[in-house]
Amino acid sequence: MASIKDVAKLADVSVGSVSKYLNGGKLKAKTTLAIEQAIQALNYEKNEYATGLRTNRTHTIALIVPTIWHPFFSELAFHIETELRHYQSKLILCNTQNNYENEIAYISMARQNKVDGLIALTYSNVDEYISSELPIVSIDRYFSEKIPTIMSDNFAGGGLAAEKLIQAGATKLAFIGYGSIYDNSTRDRYRGFQAYCQTHGLEAEVIYYEGHHHEFNEKLPELVQETIVSKGVDGIFVVNDEQAYEVLNLLQQNNVRVPEEIQVIGFDGSQQSTNIPSTLSSIRQPIPAMAAAAVKSLMNIIEKKETPLETILPVTYQAGMTTKQ
Amino acid sequence: MASIKDVAKLADVSVGSVSKYLNGGKLKAKTTLAIEQAIQALNYEKNEYATGLRTNRTHTIALIVPTIWHPFFSELAFHIETELRHYQSKLILCNTQNNYENEIAYISMARQNKVDGLIALTYSNVDEYISSELPIVSIDRYFSEKIPTIMSDNFAGGGLAAEKLIQAGATKLAFIGYGSIYDNSTRDRYRGFQAYCQTHGLEAEVIYYEGHHHEFNEKLPELVQETIVSKGVDGIFVVNDEQAYEVLNLLQQNNVRVPEEIQVIGFDGSQQSTNIPSTLSSIRQPIPAMAAAAVKSLMNIIEKKETPLETILPVTYQAGMTTKQ
Repeated sequence: MASIKDVAKLADVSVGSVSKYLNGGKLKAKTTLAIEQAIQALNYEKNEYATGLRTNRTHTIALIVPTIWHPFFSELAFHIETELRHYQSKLILCNTQNNYENEIAYISMARQNKVDGLIALTYSNVDEYISSELPIVSIDRYFSEKIPTIMSDNFAGGGLAAEKLIQAGATKLAFIGYGSIYDNSTRDRYRGFQAYCQTHGLEAEVIYYEGHHHEFNEKLPELVQETIVSKGVDGIFVVNDEQAYEVLNLLQQNNVRVPEEIQVIGFDGSQQSTNIPSTLSSIRQPIPAMAAAAVKSLMNIIEKKETPLETILPVTYQAGMTTKQ
Repeated sequence: MASIKDVAKLADVSVGSVSKYLNGGKLKAKTTLAIEQAIQALNYEKNEYATGLRTNRTHTIALIVPTIWHPFFSELAFHIETELRHYQSKLILCNTQNNYENEIAYISMARQNKVDGLIALTYSNVDEYISSELPIVSIDRYFSEKIPTIMSDNFAGGGLAAEKLIQAGATKLAFIGYGSIYDNSTRDRYRGFQAYCQTHGLEAEVIYYEGHHHEFNEKLPELVQETIVSKGVDGIFVVNDEQAYEVLNLLQQNNVRVPEEIQVIGFDGSQQSTNIPSTLSSIRQPIPAMAAAAVKSLMNIIEKKETPLETILPVTYQAGMTTKQ
């Protein structure tokens, strides 16, 4: 492969001039032309190690998600990768699999200069993120005042779910959800739902569990039987789509017809792929806008520009087949 | 941040010794101990640019897929990232979005030393891959004799689909599929299906189109009406899951009940996430095994070890709700 020296020799200029050219410095038109011709003739491509060493930029961003094998995170990763292209940056994918050690390994990698910054979607209490000097943006999870956060309007979404269930004819509502003790977005969905119910004088059943997802799923069949089926609930807002599918399975096991007897609305509104629409009625997070805002925010930090500490984006209702409208 | 010079100074050894230590060279036990103590005391972390410059390894692999926003590709990416950890390597995610220029951009990036190798899943005829000296492994697509390929047993899968439809009571079969002119896996699924039908004296209807997916989907409603609904077909093998969902939609529009009147089997068997099982009956590709084989093969090439040029992995039948068994 041609080196910077080969380019300089062919262009009959100094190595310093070629280096200046490669780093966007100003040169005489004649020199620029000679270098460009030499680069073309030699099919020269910049060695990115050397560039990194000089500019301390790798043009790579790490995206930290619990798992890419999930429609919400894969749609998000798709849009983030697309956005990063506008900045000539690449995406390193990190599945933490909810493993704290995996997260720490990625933060260490970032510190070793392997990435320019992080976009993190994590539900563990990773203090390391906060203490580090790394450029970082958080999605869906509020860490601290220092880290810009991109969120859906979870509170409004909870209210919208209640409103849509009532508009579709439900009279007795319930909320089903769980969350880690650090997961504030989950609580906001619940609070928005409750606020709507209180304003409209509705008394809602609540199944809420703070802890691990699998513990919750063990308790859920009994809770659904006790709290939903026995008490005449006819409209359920479930805290996210994945949990909503669990609830739909349990309703089917109880011979409850959806949406005829009980209507169900989830939260996320992601679909399997561009071509397979979801059958679940849901509150749709604005995933493309969240991706764009996260990338923009991170680039602002990297380029030492100002960026908002909190960005809250509006949600919409997406009708599927689990509600009557 | 501490530099290699700081480590050398504190350990009272030469910079060369520290460098030798960092690159795994042999040193006196006393020297090794002094360096390790200094590294710990200074919380020194290797600068990966500098390491890359010396060893020409970035410990990053690019995964090239049409789109991560698809259950098959996101499950595959999930497992590949997990496998890469065993080699202390990271995954750079590249969505080509079926755009040839995007693919070329990633190949150029790879040539600029930004990655150690590529795992590619592409349906365009990217000659650049073949002509490059880059370590590369192909999944699901046969390029040339030079590039190791990891495949499902598509031929056996086509036969298995026909067999399962017959076992479940279907008597008049059809195949629905499309493929790019370069997509040999698609053709093998069709050939396996046809071979089963011929061996068992069955005459099958065929809807096969070579060209773009969206062109095919425009023609499909008429073709389904003409070839499936009017001719008494009661069992359909569709070339992949995504297309199978399209077919299910069209059958619903024609008021055909699935699986009572027509049974449907797809190909891929991927599910939305670890927690949401698919409702579609399908021939399951062994995605975790494909990921492991691809990573192993690529590492063999990078480390200049021998690796098989073709790895064909067995498929299985995964019963869902679109067949009677």
